[in-house]
Amino acid sequence: MSVREVSLPTAAVPRPGKCLESIDFDLHETPQYMSYVSANNEARLDWKGGFRWLYLCGVGLGAGVVAVFIQTSLKFVMEVKFGTQEWLSALGYGLWFRFTVWLLISLLLASVAGALVCYVEPLCAGSGIPEIKCYLNGVDQPNVLRLRTLIAKAVGIVCSVAAGLPCGKEGPMIHSGAIVGALAANANAGPLVGPYRPTCEARDLTAAGAAAGVAAAFGAPIGGVLFAVEEGATHINPAIVVRMFVCSSVAALFVRFFAGPREHEVPWGTLGIGVPVEFGRFSSSDQCYFLWELPIFAAMGVTGGLLGAAANSLNQRLTCWRMRRIGSRGTCRFVEALGVTAAIVSFNFFAPFLLAGSTELHQFSPVQRLFVDTGGSSMGSLFHGTEDMHTGMLFFFALVHFAQLIWTYGLGVPSGLFVPALLGGAAFGRLVGQALQGSAYVAAGPGIYALVGATAMMSGMARITISLSVILMETTGEAQWGLPIFLTTVAAKWIGDMFNKGIYDIHIDLKHVPLLEQRPEKQMLALQASDFMTSAVVTLDVVMKVESLVEVLEGCGHHGFPVLDPASKRFLGLVERSTLHHVLRLGRLVGAFTDASLPSKQSPGIVQYEEMLRHGHPGFPSLQEVRGMLTAGECAQMLDLRPYTNMGCFFVPAHTTASRCYRLFRSMGLRHLPVLGEDYLVQGIITRSNLLAAQEGHIKPGSRAPADLSDGKDMKRERQRARTREEKVFSSELACEMSPVIGLMSLEAQRDIRFEV
Amino acid sequence: MSVREVSLPTAAVPRPGKCLESIDFDLHETPQYMSYVSANNEARLDWKGGFRWLYLCGVGLGAGVVAVFIQTSLKFVMEVKFGTQEWLSALGYGLWFRFTVWLLISLLLASVAGALVCYVEPLCAGSGIPEIKCYLNGVDQPNVLRLRTLIAKAVGIVCSVAAGLPCGKEGPMIHSGAIVGALAANANAGPLVGPYRPTCEARDLTAAGAAAGVAAAFGAPIGGVLFAVEEGATHINPAIVVRMFVCSSVAALFVRFFAGPREHEVPWGTLGIGVPVEFGRFSSSDQCYFLWELPIFAAMGVTGGLLGAAANSLNQRLTCWRMRRIGSRGTCRFVEALGVTAAIVSFNFFAPFLLAGSTELHQFSPVQRLFVDTGGSSMGSLFHGTEDMHTGMLFFFALVHFAQLIWTYGLGVPSGLFVPALLGGAAFGRLVGQALQGSAYVAAGPGIYALVGATAMMSGMARITISLSVILMETTGEAQWGLPIFLTTVAAKWIGDMFNKGIYDIHIDLKHVPLLEQRPEKQMLALQASDFMTSAVVTLDVVMKVESLVEVLEGCGHHGFPVLDPASKRFLGLVERSTLHHVLRLGRLVGAFTDASLPSKQSPGIVQYEEMLRHGHPGFPSLQEVRGMLTAGECAQMLDLRPYTNMGCFFVPAHTTASRCYRLFRSMGLRHLPVLGEDYLVQGIITRSNLLAAQEGHIKPGSRAPADLSDGKDMKRERQRARTREEKVFSSELACEMSPVIGLMSLEAQRDIRFEV
Repeated sequence: MSVREVSLPTAAVPRPGKCLESIDFDLHETPQYMSYVSANNEARLDWKGGFRWLYLCGVGLGAGVVAVFIQTSLKFVMEVKFGTQEWLSALGYGLWFRFTVWLLISLLLASVAGALVCYVEPLCAGSGIPEIKCYLNGVDQPNVLRLRTLIAKAVGIVCSVAAGLPCGKEGPMIHSGAIVGALAANANAGPLVGPYRPTCEARDLTAAGAAAGVAAAFGAPIGGVLFAVEEGATHINPAIVVRMFVCSSVAALFVRFFAGPREHEVPWGTLGIGVPVEFGRFSSSDQCYFLWELPIFAAMGVTGGLLGAAANSLNQRLTCWRMRRIGSRGTCRFVEALGVTAAIVSFNFFAPFLLAGSTELHQFSPVQRLFVDTGGSSMGSLFHGTEDMHTGMLFFFALVHFAQLIWTYGLGVPSGLFVPALLGGAAFGRLVGQALQGSAYVAAGPGIYALVGATAMMSGMARITISLSVILMETTGEAQWGLPIFLTTVAAKWIGDMFNKGIYDIHIDLKHVPLLEQRPEKQMLALQASDFMTSAVVTLDVVMKVESLVEVLEGCGHHGFPVLDPASKRFLGLVERSTLHHVLRLGRLVGAFTDASLPSKQSPGIVQYEEMLRHGHPGFPSLQEVRGMLTAGECAQMLDLRPYTNMGCFFVPAHTTASRCYRLFRSMGLRHLPVLGEDYLVQGIITRSNLLAAQEGHIKPGSRAPADLSDGKDMKRERQRARTREEKVFSSELACEMSPVIGLMSLEAQRDIRFEV
Repeated sequence: MSVREVSLPTAAVPRPGKCLESIDFDLHETPQYMSYVSANNEARLDWKGGFRWLYLCGVGLGAGVVAVFIQTSLKFVMEVKFGTQEWLSALGYGLWFRFTVWLLISLLLASVAGALVCYVEPLCAGSGIPEIKCYLNGVDQPNVLRLRTLIAKAVGIVCSVAAGLPCGKEGPMIHSGAIVGALAANANAGPLVGPYRPTCEARDLTAAGAAAGVAAAFGAPIGGVLFAVEEGATHINPAIVVRMFVCSSVAALFVRFFAGPREHEVPWGTLGIGVPVEFGRFSSSDQCYFLWELPIFAAMGVTGGLLGAAANSLNQRLTCWRMRRIGSRGTCRFVEALGVTAAIVSFNFFAPFLLAGSTELHQFSPVQRLFVDTGGSSMGSLFHGTEDMHTGMLFFFALVHFAQLIWTYGLGVPSGLFVPALLGGAAFGRLVGQALQGSAYVAAGPGIYALVGATAMMSGMARITISLSVILMETTGEAQWGLPIFLTTVAAKWIGDMFNKGIYDIHIDLKHVPLLEQRPEKQMLALQASDFMTSAVVTLDVVMKVESLVEVLEGCGHHGFPVLDPASKRFLGLVERSTLHHVLRLGRLVGAFTDASLPSKQSPGIVQYEEMLRHGHPGFPSLQEVRGMLTAGECAQMLDLRPYTNMGCFFVPAHTTASRCYRLFRSMGLRHLPVLGEDYLVQGIITRSNLLAAQEGHIKPGSRAPADLSDGKDMKRERQRARTREEKVFSSELACEMSPVIGLMSLEAQRDIRFEV
């Protein structure tokens, strides 16, 4: 949510926006916060609750506006591009001249898209879906949810699609929707998210925005909600689902009303079937299939899974190479984007001529148009084309498109994966469908096979299941194809998962984002909290000298500090850096700092929560600023941390199993989980990276033996053996594993940033 | 999952099956269990994981078989019923004779349905959806998931629908599906759910079964999954969603293939559009609407919400009266069922004659047939009837059906709510649609208005949103109506929620089931764990004399016991009654009991987890049986509880806020949450009923002041004031509130049972 400064090991210079941060979705029930909530009585809260629905509709509308902007601009640019060709052709210019103009326009567009990524905002590259997934999981990459990113993304995606690259506009639309949601949450922290759970409300609005983005991109409100559930399902409850639904319905309505190609003229204001869906409806002759076609669909799913896994693996290698050689921004990346665009656009310009026929764009046959059209139109012709397409040419297109897709994803331009993957699959699927036509045992037309193929490829690459099925169902307007689509989806996912992760997860992994996923946790049963926690905890005393507090804050980059009773050293609660910065800055105004000599009966002033909100909480001032405002006299005074300490925070005893810690951490959206020993003494702290290390098997059970158990011997021996062997590996591996990369930052550039917990 | 015995206050006689029980979905990481998991190595676990998919397909198939059985039987019985009338008519018998036969057949059918409820299994009354919702939330009502209930429900629903009562077969199909899932989980606790999280696996299979039930009932696999998510969303993650999807797809495929009316002849094996959906597809002339019709749809939603709220309120009063006067089983209830059937059937037989025309059933006009047809066919004619129906008669039918629906739900027969509510709403909606026809500003046909009306009424009564939208979308085969349907749904839900809860929740409340729902928890921020916990905790020493252990078990009905270190009295962990019973019974065989004089170095034998599984864990032997097997010598020996204690269980400090306890308890699926004070001393324990009391405002913040806070004064005073006033009310209120009712047990009968935690 907020940019914050961290002190780097080399120098104490804060580098804002250079650091991955965990987000704390837990409610901090500090006395300060509790008194704020009790002051905001029920009636006022309810009244504020009403705002939420307005905001949700607003977010939906915003996502819709962005989607309509993208669609309309794209249509306009494409018309200019094709129009120029026809005009030149009419004027009698030759093929090579027309090609030069075509290439120059494409390069111009690509250079805009590339410049936005390479010089403005590296995070607007790609589809943005991995970034949103990370945010919903609780990892904040700076600038992901900024207005600048939104603008760069929206403008960039129009350019990269229009340039002729195999990019989809849908992924960026989802990212845009999420940004709109986050902006709405940030814009008015007062009436909407004021009193209750600010980070959670922001997360829910962002999720709703992402759902609205899908709804706007595909005209699929239900698919949108399911997508948000499937990709960000860490924190889902029915209330959030309903909110997402409201939001995505508004977006879908807006887009359906203002954009989208119309099949035939209808009076203004007509909705429903008269207004076509994204990929067009199937004609009734296509609309049945035989029971024994289901195995064919499943086999296509298997093939899709294999192709998807291969694509992911190739793209992973390519992305690694890009990270190492090209980096996430700068001229090197810009030149690559232009080079790839030039290669792909030139190839696709000449490829249609392999099939004898006119060299005029407007005289191309449907299969020739596949090379030059945008993804959406090509999908339509593959799904609904009634004539057989030239088999060789279709196969050639499928292969070329597949290769171009792998080449493009991860390039320094905004680019969605949905439509290109669907298009590649549809081409393969239609090939199968055309081959099977004429058999008495096949009832489904080639269009349906194209649909199944598209499903298979998309599911094989992205490994999304239900939401993909529903989106395809909604974009083709047919609920009846749910079963074949779903069967294919699952087959592709199963097969693909045998080889590697989905493409989004691969890119998340390559960025070393510590994502906590729902995974089998059996091996984590043998680990105890004390085995994988961070033992070196920076703690604070409950009443501290201001000077020492500032020193502690300067001396480390942690965000959460266990607060101890100075006498007994017992754990009292957790205090956040963001709160401390605010308190140090505002403390003077309310008399929060007291002299040690003060009679203890007079209680010190408290920095109120409203005051912090007014100063931008959950954002917070930098330590420099705080330091600058403290006088020498104040530094010598004492500060009582009790009102700012979350005394009810979750903690675990040292012998708790890793699997239990993981479940607690993930489902409660925590950022810090203190580990306590006997008598509530702090033994360590668990953060996201500790859990990830435990999950990925970097840590083996420690020497701590389980309770007296005659059958526990195997486990014990295994632990002993593993410990010595693994610890060495771990220290070096983890150091590499945990270092974050922002965007596709080069590996060199990664060295000087750390993952802050 | 298991029937268990509890000692009742009046006598120590266990009464199996008379007690609501919480279910513990948490994983008990006892040393015993951990050694079991470590013995079952990864490879074997993976191999077992493969079984899961087979089981899921099996569950889907099972749900499909039940659905097909219900559909086919119902079709057959209805043909017999109508056939008899035509036959009698052909033979020249008069109206009154025909009526007598019609009534007798109906009463015969109703008596079968009533007898199944009143004398066999009271829990097969109603739709079963509330019971499934409770189970997924973690409250087990005995017999809900038994084979006997399944059979009684499946046979009963055929009879009650065929008898002519306004009942839907869909709710019971959902319940049946869930039972199939639960039976599959119980049938083979070995290979499937053996090593890992047995209760969770059972819950997931049951949820998948319920989804399959919806899928089978409506042919709506996606709607099924969403229904399970919406109604049982306490524990949802993407993995479970995918499993539910597999299960419900199989069910939908099976049903679609073997049942359902076919619009036109298609070759065997044809699937897809050729096979019609439950309520029929809309013709293309109906398929658009204007933007300004959306407000009309929303207004219909508002009306639906009002009507639904009124229906719920009336039905609530009626159900209360039924509980007080009639009871949940026995002759009284049976007679009521027959009486209501006779009244409704007679009325509906003669009502069509108000419209002039033939008295022959087969010559009825569509509006006349509404009175005598089953819900599904009536829906079809309201949605797709091309001629205008007689307005007065349609209005009369809508009113009558609405009243009959309220009267019937809660009657002593199996009866679903879905189709009757949809039908009532469809009748009202068609009225609106017919009135608006002819206007140039209205594009949607009366069938669409009927669809919107049906949505409004159903949503107004049951308050389900997304799943209802998707189910209707899938049953009409059209994805394009998603937006109007969803708008109506939300409007109806919002308006309805202003007045009362959904009908399912009302029935759950009337049964005093302690359901933990997702609700605003702001007021729970002011409560601390120590304010609402149960202070009188029965604890166990970690090494105990067998005799004393048995006495403790006999002396209370609790299921979980904190285990203490006898010297320091510190909390060590939680042990379950089920485990203790097993250990006491099997202890002798493995030498778990030791003499106090034994040298402490020799560790005692351990009852292994496999052994417990073999003896029916998570079911467990009764205390009588255990007591009978213990010799006097064994009773004098000592038992070490450490291997059976869950040392890692969740606990909270006494000052934790109620809202945090609630979140932890609900999302982790706990049954007991120990509350610890200083130095890990046990201060109390929190169970479902404590949380519910806190949530419902029975408890006001205690005298415990918050940390020194100058602004906390208001809160403090409020707490003080409230405490004295509330405590009196609470003790009497809670006693009433917490007593459970099984089925619609009469209030008198409730006195001798308690809710066991």
